[in-house]
Amino acid sequence: MSAGSRKPPSYIRPIVRRLHAYTPGEQPQVRGLVKLNTNENPYPPSPKVLRAVQSAVDARLRLYPNPTAEPLREKLAALHHCRPANIIVGNGSDELLALATRAFVEPESACPPNNDCSVGAARRSTAKLQRPCPLFPSSRAVVQFFTPSYSLYPVLADIAGARRNPVPLAADFALPAIADLKAGRWDFQAALTFITTPNAPSGRGYATEELEKLCRAQRGVVVLDEAYVDFARENAMALALRHPHVLVARTFSKAYSLCFQRIGYFVGHAGLIAALQKIRDSYNVNGLGQIAALATLADLPYYRRGFQRIIATRERLSSELSKLGFALLPSQTNFIFARPPKFPAEAWLQKLRARKVLVRWFPSPETKDYLRITIGTDADAAALLRASRLVLLGRAFPTR
Amino acid sequence: MSAGSRKPPSYIRPIVRRLHAYTPGEQPQVRGLVKLNTNENPYPPSPKVLRAVQSAVDARLRLYPNPTAEPLREKLAALHHCRPANIIVGNGSDELLALATRAFVEPESACPPNNDCSVGAARRSTAKLQRPCPLFPSSRAVVQFFTPSYSLYPVLADIAGARRNPVPLAADFALPAIADLKAGRWDFQAALTFITTPNAPSGRGYATEELEKLCRAQRGVVVLDEAYVDFARENAMALALRHPHVLVARTFSKAYSLCFQRIGYFVGHAGLIAALQKIRDSYNVNGLGQIAALATLADLPYYRRGFQRIIATRERLSSELSKLGFALLPSQTNFIFARPPKFPAEAWLQKLRARKVLVRWFPSPETKDYLRITIGTDADAAALLRASRLVLLGRAFPTR
Repeated sequence: MSAGSRKPPSYIRPIVRRLHAYTPGEQPQVRGLVKLNTNENPYPPSPKVLRAVQSAVDARLRLYPNPTAEPLREKLAALHHCRPANIIVGNGSDELLALATRAFVEPESACPPNNDCSVGAARRSTAKLQRPCPLFPSSRAVVQFFTPSYSLYPVLADIAGARRNPVPLAADFALPAIADLKAGRWDFQAALTFITTPNAPSGRGYATEELEKLCRAQRGVVVLDEAYVDFARENAMALALRHPHVLVARTFSKAYSLCFQRIGYFVGHAGLIAALQKIRDSYNVNGLGQIAALATLADLPYYRRGFQRIIATRERLSSELSKLGFALLPSQTNFIFARPPKFPAEAWLQKLRARKVLVRWFPSPETKDYLRITIGTDADAAALLRASRLVLLGRAFPTR
Repeated sequence: MSAGSRKPPSYIRPIVRRLHAYTPGEQPQVRGLVKLNTNENPYPPSPKVLRAVQSAVDARLRLYPNPTAEPLREKLAALHHCRPANIIVGNGSDELLALATRAFVEPESACPPNNDCSVGAARRSTAKLQRPCPLFPSSRAVVQFFTPSYSLYPVLADIAGARRNPVPLAADFALPAIADLKAGRWDFQAALTFITTPNAPSGRGYATEELEKLCRAQRGVVVLDEAYVDFARENAMALALRHPHVLVARTFSKAYSLCFQRIGYFVGHAGLIAALQKIRDSYNVNGLGQIAALATLADLPYYRRGFQRIIATRERLSSELSKLGFALLPSQTNFIFARPPKFPAEAWLQKLRARKVLVRWFPSPETKDYLRITIGTDADAAALLRASRLVLLGRAFPTR
């Protein structure tokens, strides 16, 4: 390609060219909007956390942060009754989910499209590449997850050049029984399986006993993604410390009001953690984020009071929405998944938005009949109920 | 592997198992140590930057940061006379260097060690894998760089499963002439070439004209890594905006005293930038880091005064060290590379350390005769000179 050309596709790997461009989440700038679409905590970080971060904003910003987040890993190890070697801290848990695909999953094929490998050519001519490449033990290239769950997993599989294996959850978003999985397309050898627990977007919680059965049946790595677990009745942390192939993902973003500073972590076997440490960026966790997370761990009672408030709001809001005719799934998260009455869910999204309440709607077949509604403050819940009553009455939009 | 086993190597990709464990940089806890080993800026961020960050530490920490660092990219585009589409911001420039290996370089072979591909088996039996795999256009898998330069490049090549092509710089760390490169092992088709300019650890600056000749000769992507360019006489930013295969890497860490908050960026053709955007984490840049970088761009004269002080200290220190018998390379960075008199460089490292001055020494053949010394404050320079005179006098260590 000549230096003057404006289209340089040949510099970019085919696998990357085929990816869809990233679309950032909706960040509406509407004044007075009640934002119940991204599962953020409605309450601010603890005043002690804010003070700790404020008082760290000084000349130290010129220095590199702790490269291994050592003080934070020590506190997390004490919290979870394990060793710092069982913990890796990431730039949000998203970074760690991506690292897991790179540490544990082979690319499905590194064959570039123009090579002279007859096997590769034969595979590429097969419409959907359903025949596994004979050069590969195929499960080594599989990223497996239930649908619906966190929409990042298929994106990470594509970026890693891995093969996605999306498998539907049971009715009402329960975990399918092992026998049912054996009868279907589930891969017990999959290199990497992601399980969102409690599930998003349904809010459904899973029993640790049930998760352990599934983990025991898997031959590859299992990541139990517990982003919302602080709002649930149980957590599966024990599985990460009991099984050498199970990792538990946690984040300070949602429950601990620190989305802005990007702190997540994995807990698991020191061997898996060491593999992830080898391939992360050297200084992957910013310094003020480390300080904020440390201060958070020193003030957990503040956050636990917040969880109780959010759960109480969730239960009251659920009850009120039921009275309006919404069909609700029981939630163990800081959001609810509700099938609205009278109009299709997508129409509700627009009608609520016109009344300055923003919720989330997912277009896939399993989710298109539902709205996902983040639990905010009691005032947010009241605003949602007021808007919903107006939608049901079919009132024209308020003119001002 | 059974669930009870404590050694889970089979979960981890062979390519990751073969990597060396990450060793974090030296973070000595010695009181009163003069730390001249990691090229951090001795001066703090501007008071305006500190105030901007302090006043942002509030309830907003609960919200996600801007996913594309849009306001920062707009200001950077104005600074560099390009469009936001020409810029990607990263969690430090290290993240972007890693993304470049994943966007532009094929893994050398995805063949797992136990597959049945006779080609792969033949290659693996070749001691150093010098024969390129016939399934691959080999340059597509090459990460190329000069030695010595930033020690991260070979690590990134290994993590990506790419082939390293390290090529020695000319004598005195100059860029080799194109004719000399043609006669040697340099690969003009390499998928990705990293050039540290000014060079680290030598401090040598390169003329933009010379860099452009090399860029014009390359058929793959070239990253001009300008981490230290604010201390140099020229920069090569124009090349990123003139050539569709050239990216310039910049960082707020060193010159702008923001190591702690991890902000770097690439400038280049919108096509290359879009490819990198597709594979980064969705919220890769923390919010307080974005705010700090924005405030930095609003107070550039503060930083430029600091660069002048550092350059003045560098020139005075160089002159004084010369008088003591050090052989100095001309530096265009915030560090100097000096061949010390009387004792081997490694011995100097220890002798200076015993006198509480920490500098850097690299053991490779091209660098083992030199010390790399970060330019700190004038007081730091005085401490180094005092310690050096004591070393030369062979004085016993001070007892206290």
